[in-house]
Amino acid sequence: MSTIDFVNDSALKKGIKEFLETAPHIYMAGVSVDTVIFGFHNDKLKALMLRFGNTPYFVLPGGYIMKEENLDDAALRILQERTGLKNIYLEQFYTSGNTSRSKEEVAMELTQKMIGTLPNSNWFAQRFVSVCYYALIDDTKVNPVTEVFFTEVKWFDVSKLPKVLYDHDVIINKALKRLQADLDEKLVGFNLMSETFTMGQLQKLYEAVYQKKFVRTNFQRKMLSMNVLERLEKQYNGKSHKAPYLYRFAESKK
Amino acid sequence: MSTIDFVNDSALKKGIKEFLETAPHIYMAGVSVDTVIFGFHNDKLKALMLRFGNTPYFVLPGGYIMKEENLDDAALRILQERTGLKNIYLEQFYTSGNTSRSKEEVAMELTQKMIGTLPNSNWFAQRFVSVCYYALIDDTKVNPVTEVFFTEVKWFDVSKLPKVLYDHDVIINKALKRLQADLDEKLVGFNLMSETFTMGQLQKLYEAVYQKKFVRTNFQRKMLSMNVLERLEKQYNGKSHKAPYLYRFAESKK
Repeated sequence: MSTIDFVNDSALKKGIKEFLETAPHIYMAGVSVDTVIFGFHNDKLKALMLRFGNTPYFVLPGGYIMKEENLDDAALRILQERTGLKNIYLEQFYTSGNTSRSKEEVAMELTQKMIGTLPNSNWFAQRFVSVCYYALIDDTKVNPVTEVFFTEVKWFDVSKLPKVLYDHDVIINKALKRLQADLDEKLVGFNLMSETFTMGQLQKLYEAVYQKKFVRTNFQRKMLSMNVLERLEKQYNGKSHKAPYLYRFAESKK
Repeated sequence: MSTIDFVNDSALKKGIKEFLETAPHIYMAGVSVDTVIFGFHNDKLKALMLRFGNTPYFVLPGGYIMKEENLDDAALRILQERTGLKNIYLEQFYTSGNTSRSKEEVAMELTQKMIGTLPNSNWFAQRFVSVCYYALIDDTKVNPVTEVFFTEVKWFDVSKLPKVLYDHDVIINKALKRLQADLDEKLVGFNLMSETFTMGQLQKLYEAVYQKKFVRTNFQRKMLSMNVLERLEKQYNGKSHKAPYLYRFAESKK
């Protein structure tokens, strides 16, 4: 920890001090929200993370619930505030509540280094149970934004995560397992494929989510047995004997 | 509400007063736990509920998380304290956090009627986000116990629930949907069937959980396709031409 080079960022220091003073009046104590935003593009599955201040640590887009705010509304507001993402379909999947999850020392030391002496009650360092949501989006369709607390918003390959604070690595892994289990059912809801697509394109999505290869014929059989796909014309491209069929999600499943 | 006949129960009044004084020092504020315990017996699916004091209202077995206690440990402790049930496999499935969920007026009025004037800070009436767990057990294998706050512990058919406090009816319905979605995968883990069983017995469990009938041949085909069952000898009972096969869960799936 001692090797971290802290930039003397006065806007950040001011922001954190103000937050620590006002937070107890605005937000519920003890409960936070974290969101795992999976992005799919170029056959890769990525997760969106934020650089904490000017440290080398990244965290999930997360925050606190206003005293008079519904939990699901808080998750949407927090995601928008942290990343600029609006109208994302968020799925609640897990609440993390081990006492060891906050790794207090790291968060304390980072905050201390950033703003100097801490107030008596350090909002960041108290115990929080975190309600976790996930989403799966096409990462080319969004333009995440930064703000004063989080100086960088970045997509990471799910197999190559950066250093994280708290138990955010555990939460991402749980989200990935849930995404795998739910993918069949959520396929249409996630609204991720273009209007029409080939079986091969759909297979790339499954392979990215499951982080493994599938046998083409088995994959096709499984997909067709789900009765959610409608087969359209072939995608002619000059090599007609190899042209793949196009599919779309059947109307009744949308 | 005004027609409720409150018994003048001094142990209950004392218990509630003591709880309201000590709770803020022992438990996390803002987060609670509720458990939905499904019982399966005689082809019926039931849910375990507790009568709140001496009112006509029932609640799920629930409670609060100690300041230094892991969330999952809290759920197991609470279930044991409220019902006497030990070593139950609990599955976290949902966190309920709408601001409207507490139906404050009802809880306030009930508490007030039971103990007279309320302390300035009424622990029961503040906003709680509730982390919910479910289990599925053989209800003949357990003997639930009562305690001072909850004067009756009772199984209710899931299609005939009593009057409930808070949003516990919503939580039970969410638990049932999750149980239906998870049943295939959790079948072995729930440890619910006897060592060997007929396909008909397994079908009764599915029909109770899904609250509908299945076609015998389709059900058998689906179960066998899951590759978790091992077929044993026939269950001879004198009418050998009608004897059903016995099954057990394959060793590798236990």
